[in-house]
Amino acid sequence: MKLSAFRKFLPLFDRVLVERLMAETKTKGGIMLPDKAQGKVLQATVVAVGPGAINQKGVVQPLSVKVGEKVLLPEYGGTKVVLEDKDYFLFRDGDILGKYVE
Amino acid sequence: MKLSAFRKFLPLFDRVLVERLMAETKTKGGIMLPDKAQGKVLQATVVAVGPGAINQKGVVQPLSVKVGEKVLLPEYGGTKVVLEDKDYFLFRDGDILGKYVE
Amino acid sequence: MKLSAFRKFLPLFDRVLVERLMAETKTKGGIMLPDKAQGKVLQATVVAVGPGAINQKGVVQPLSVKVGEKVLLPEYGGTKVVLEDKDYFLFRDGDILGKYVE
Amino acid sequence: MKLSAFRKFLPLFDRVLVERLMAETKTKGGIMLPDKAQGKVLQATVVAVGPGAINQKGVVQPLSVKVGEKVLLPEYGGTKVVLEDKDYFLFRDGDILGKYVE
Amino acid sequence: MKLSAFRKFLPLFDRVLVERLMAETKTKGGIMLPDKAQGKVLQATVVAVGPGAINQKGVVQPLSVKVGEKVLLPEYGGTKVVLEDKDYFLFRDGDILGKYVE
Amino acid sequence: MKLSAFRKFLPLFDRVLVERLMAETKTKGGIMLPDKAQGKVLQATVVAVGPGAINQKGVVQPLSVKVGEKVLLPEYGGTKVVLEDKDYFLFRDGDILGKYVE
Amino acid sequence: MKLSAFRKFLPLFDRVLVERLMAETKTKGGIMLPDKAQGKVLQATVVAVGPGAINQKGVVQPLSVKVGEKVLLPEYGGTKVVLEDKDYFLFRDGDILGKYVE
Repeated sequence: MKLSAFRKFLPLFDRVLVERLMAETKTKGGIMLPDKAQGKVLQATVVAVGPGAINQKGVVQPLSVKVGEKVLLPEYGGTKVVLEDKDYFLFRDGDILGKYVE
Repeated sequence: MKLSAFRKFLPLFDRVLVERLMAETKTKGGIMLPDKAQGKVLQATVVAVGPGAINQKGVVQPLSVKVGEKVLLPEYGGTKVVLEDKDYFLFRDGDILGKYVE
Repeated sequence: MKLSAFRKFLPLFDRVLVERLMAETKTKGGIMLPDKAQGKVLQATVVAVGPGAINQKGVVQPLSVKVGEKVLLPEYGGTKVVLEDKDYFLFRDGDILGKYVE
Repeated sequence: MKLSAFRKFLPLFDRVLVERLMAETKTKGGIMLPDKAQGKVLQATVVAVGPGAINQKGVVQPLSVKVGEKVLLPEYGGTKVVLEDKDYFLFRDGDILGKYVE
Repeated sequence: MKLSAFRKFLPLFDRVLVERLMAETKTKGGIMLPDKAQGKVLQATVVAVGPGAINQKGVVQPLSVKVGEKVLLPEYGGTKVVLEDKDYFLFRDGDILGKYVE
Repeated sequence: MKLSAFRKFLPLFDRVLVERLMAETKTKGGIMLPDKAQGKVLQATVVAVGPGAINQKGVVQPLSVKVGEKVLLPEYGGTKVVLEDKDYFLFRDGDILGKYVE
Repeated sequence: MKLSAFRKFLPLFDRVLVERLMAETKTKGGIMLPDKAQGKVLQATVVAVGPGAINQKGVVQPLSVKVGEKVLLPEYGGTKVVLEDKDYFLFRDGDILGKYVE
C-alpha cells in the first residue's frame, strides 16, 4: 500500500506539524529580493497536532496551539517532513515561541 | 534450542519493532534510481510492540502505535535487529515522529 | 493573510515578551555617548506574557511579572523577535532577575 | 571460606545475569567460520535476576525477564562476570532489547 | 519614566540581593593594604529577597535569609547589578554558604 | 582524642564498607603468581553498612546487603578508607553488582 | 559592625562546618614527618550544622551528623571558610563518608 494512499499524517505526543509561510520576495519599497536574501521564514501555520505528551502522573498534557493558528517558530530546531512532495516541519509544542491572534 | 525455533520476538518496555518500507527504485518520471540515490527509507510498518514503559508511579504507559500501522521514523537512531535473516529496527515509542492514517 | 493583519502576539508557556528601555545617550555630566559605548540595556518593559508553564502535576504556574512592569534582564539569553519592524525579546519568566517597583 | 563454596550468585536491584548462546561456527552453507568472523553473540539465556529496582515511591519494580528465557542483548554495555571459570554478563533489565517466545 | 524614579528593586523567585561589606584596608598590624591585595570580600549584607522559588508541587519555598542579615558568599557566582550607581550582587538562596548571628 | 580510640566506623547514607578477599597467589595448577599478575580482587566481605539513602518522599531506603555477606564489586569506583592501618573500600549500595549465597 | 562581633556562624541548608584534626607529625616509629609528607587530614570534628535541605515535597531533611562528632571527609571537595583567623571547611551532609563512634 503506497504511502500516497494515506490522506492524513498524525504527529505523535507533543509534536506539531507546521507549514512555513511564504518568504517575502520584495522589500517594503517593492524591490525584488534574491533567494539568498530572503532568509528562513519563522512564521508558520499549524497543519496537524499530536495528542499531547504524557506527564509523570500519566496525564496527557493538552497542546497550546491548534490547527490553523499562526505561530512563531524558533530560529533553530524542528524536523523536516516531506508529505506528498511538500515540505513541512515538526516542532515540539514547548519549543514554539508564541502565536499571532486577531 | 536453536533460535530459529522461536516464532515471535517481543520488544521490551516502550520499544517498537518496525520494518522499513521498500525504497522507491524509480523517480516520478519512471527513471531507475541507482542504489546510492535511494536514500534511507523513513516510512515503516510496526511489526511488534513492547508492553510500555513504567512511569515514576509504577504505572505502565501504553504505547501510541499498534502492530500494522504505518509510521514515520526519525532520520537517526534505532537499533538494527536481524530476525530470520531479515533486517528490522527497534525504536523507542517516544522517538517515532508520527503515523499515517487512512 | 499577511502577518501584519495580526494585532497581538501571545508568548507561549512561561515566556515573557519585553521591550528594552532606550539606551542612555549622555553621561551624567551631559557628554554625548557614541553608540558603541552605550552598551546593552538590561532594563525593559513587559509587553506580553504567556499563560505560564505547566508543572509536573499538570498545574499551570502563574508568571511573576505583569504587562507594563519594569524588569531587570540577565546579561545573556533571550530570543529576538521582530514584530511590525520593532525589536522585542522573549525571556523565560524564571530568567528575569527582578522588577522595579514604585 | 573460598568463593567456590558458594553455589549461587544473586544480582542486585534490576540487574540480570545472562549466558551468551554459542556462536555459529558454520555458515548456512556449512562452511567453517574462523573465530574472528564469528562476531559477538547477542542472543543469551537468563541465568539469574535481581529483585528489581526501587522507584521514587520506594516500590520495587518487577523485572521483565525470567530465568531460562532467551533474550536479545544490545551491541554494547554489560559487565563481564566470571563464575566458576565461566563467562557471564550482567545487564540492566531496561537495557535488554527483547525476548524470544515460543 | 526614567529608572531612577523607582525606589525599590524586588529580586524574583529565590534570588537574594546583597551588598558586600567594605574590604579591610589595613592588616591586623595596621599596615595599609594596596587595592590588589584586598581580595574579594565574601561577607555581605542582605538588601532585598525574592518571594522564593516554587517547588514541583507548586508550593513557594521560603528563603533562608532575611533583609539585614550578614551572610557568607561563595567565592564564585552571583550577578552584578548596578542600582543608583552602587554595585549589588544577586545570588540564589541555595548558593549562600551561611549567615553570621549575634 | 586520637582516632584509634574509636572502635567503630559507620558509613553514611547508602554507603557500604567492604574488605576485599585475599588475592589468589597460585594458579589452579599450583604455580606461584607474581604480585603484578594477581589483579584486583572484585570479591569482598561487607564490614559495615550505612542507614540507607533517603528518597524523594523522605523515606529511608534499606540497603540490599548485610554485614558479613560476600559481594561482587564493580571493576571501577569505590573510595579507599584506611582504618587502623588496614585498607577498606566504600561503595554505594547501588553500585554493588551482586552477592554470593550458600 | 565588624564581623568579629559575631560569635556564631550558621551553615545554610545541608551544609556542615568541620575542623580538620591535627596532622600526624611523627611516624609510628616516632620519626618526625616533614610538612609535605603529612598529607591532607581527612578526619575532622563537626563544628556547626545547617537546618537541612528541603526535599521536593517541601519537607526539611534532617542531617546525619551532629556537632562534636568525628567524621571522615572525602579526598576532594569542600569550601574553605576562615572564621576568626582559623580554617574551617564546609561540606554537604551527603558528601561526608562516615563517622567514628565510641
